[in-house]
Amino acid sequence: MSNEELVERITREVLRRLEGGRPARTETDEVCYRCIGCGQCVTRRPGAVAALLDAGASRVSSTIGATPRDATVASLIDHTLLKPDATTDDIAKLCDEAIKHRFAAVCVQPYYVRFVAERLERAGARVKACSVAGFPHGANRSDVKAFEAKRAVGDGAREVDMVINVGALRSGDYRYVENDMRGVVEACGRGIVTKVILETGYLNDEEKIKACALAKAAGVSFVKTSTGFGPRGASVEDIRLMRKVVGEEMGVKAAGGIRTAEDLRKMVEAGATRIGTSASIKIIGSA
Amino acid sequence: MSNEELVERITREVLRRLEGGRPARTETDEVCYRCIGCGQCVTRRPGAVAALLDAGASRVSSTIGATPRDATVASLIDHTLLKPDATTDDIAKLCDEAIKHRFAAVCVQPYYVRFVAERLERAGARVKACSVAGFPHGANRSDVKAFEAKRAVGDGAREVDMVINVGALRSGDYRYVENDMRGVVEACGRGIVTKVILETGYLNDEEKIKACALAKAAGVSFVKTSTGFGPRGASVEDIRLMRKVVGEEMGVKAAGGIRTAEDLRKMVEAGATRIGTSASIKIIGSA
Repeated sequence: MSNEELVERITREVLRRLEGGRPARTETDEVCYRCIGCGQCVTRRPGAVAALLDAGASRVSSTIGATPRDATVASLIDHTLLKPDATTDDIAKLCDEAIKHRFAAVCVQPYYVRFVAERLERAGARVKACSVAGFPHGANRSDVKAFEAKRAVGDGAREVDMVINVGALRSGDYRYVENDMRGVVEACGRGIVTKVILETGYLNDEEKIKACALAKAAGVSFVKTSTGFGPRGASVEDIRLMRKVVGEEMGVKAAGGIRTAEDLRKMVEAGATRIGTSASIKIIGSA
Repeated sequence: MSNEELVERITREVLRRLEGGRPARTETDEVCYRCIGCGQCVTRRPGAVAALLDAGASRVSSTIGATPRDATVASLIDHTLLKPDATTDDIAKLCDEAIKHRFAAVCVQPYYVRFVAERLERAGARVKACSVAGFPHGANRSDVKAFEAKRAVGDGAREVDMVINVGALRSGDYRYVENDMRGVVEACGRGIVTKVILETGYLNDEEKIKACALAKAAGVSFVKTSTGFGPRGASVEDIRLMRKVVGEEMGVKAAGGIRTAEDLRKMVEAGATRIGTSASIKIIGSA
């Protein structure tokens, strides 16, 4: 083995170890040695995104600058920028991209929700403002989480992504976890989509199953894998498991029989804001 | 160069690049190729910790299982466990260690504050419960941050570490940033120590200086470098810069002329809960 080959092998090995488990790369995907949370998967790794959708995900996240290769997929996407150092200019750009590509929602930190809601409304866009609550650790008091959610809705959020209390879950305080979620659902009120982020990187399968069951009992609309700031992002296995537990009622607004890009497009045109399909690789691939 | 030497060199180089800037390792420090935020610096890297103290830090964070080599330094330490997946058992252990070693405070997520405050009180310890607000992103609404701080105090927190709104700062909305901090200070009320975390990894020097000036104007007790969940931790340069801007009144409760472990011990015995010194390397080294 030459030195150069050795260098390449070691570099890959070190980075692979640091990287942890992620969906396998497909031929259409760019090589990312280490996930830096750039949020460009939709553009750069469509195969991996398709694999997630295929496993039952009904939403994926993208970020500023990302453009899906298949426009019909846009309606599944929460266009997201949650970095703490994002500026008003960044958020304005995010909104404009979401309006242009007709993403499902623009997901931002609470501080920016009013700005986003007003900008989207001024543009007459159907894109929704999405906020977060108890983000990204979820270890806040329940009343604080609920208050944050309520204020976000007051600012114009139509969707709120809350984070589960991982510590309480892992300590076995299930009643607390359920009430914590229910508090946010009630604070949001009718007509608001709520999502619970499980941060699956912290959980074993048993904990994931319990979390999904509790979310269902609490009346949450969606379960979601990750914050983007935890130990790892979404995995195909997580999506599959979560979907299995919550069934068809949660997190999948239009599902069943969607096998082609044409099927999906029809659903979106008919007003569906959430699409679940097991044929997403085919759908994206045919774009 | 042999293949083994090459492997070693490249591995170090890759990891060094991923790691970013940290205080230089001293002879007494263990080798940590990549900071995983284990919180064991006090035990494993006393030289690096000493360098931070030497630059003007009056508090450092440690975590569960960490034991300072110099007992007199314990009173400078906020014993910290903010990982979202920490369980009640972990927090109980953290408290017991803090009581045993007489750390200044036990710093936990809001969810655990009441538990900590009660455990510390039952033990009759002088260790204080410390909570966080708007942690770790700081991009919450100001009223939510203030509400969270107020509730933490109600749960028994005597110290509250809030996170600055980095986005607002970087967008140039200084009035907002100052009012955001002041809201937390006022919500906490008299007798509560407030700390503002700047998350310096996101800021250039000009922004750090502005942040310190705003914190001072807002009546905050301490400025603090990092959350432990941001791009990087504290650096000697940050500490030096922050101290220069805030002067002696903030974040340094007993400072000036403390040159030996004996000097420091006297201050602590006299009731000082914060110690700033430029001779900490010597102090720790002589323990």
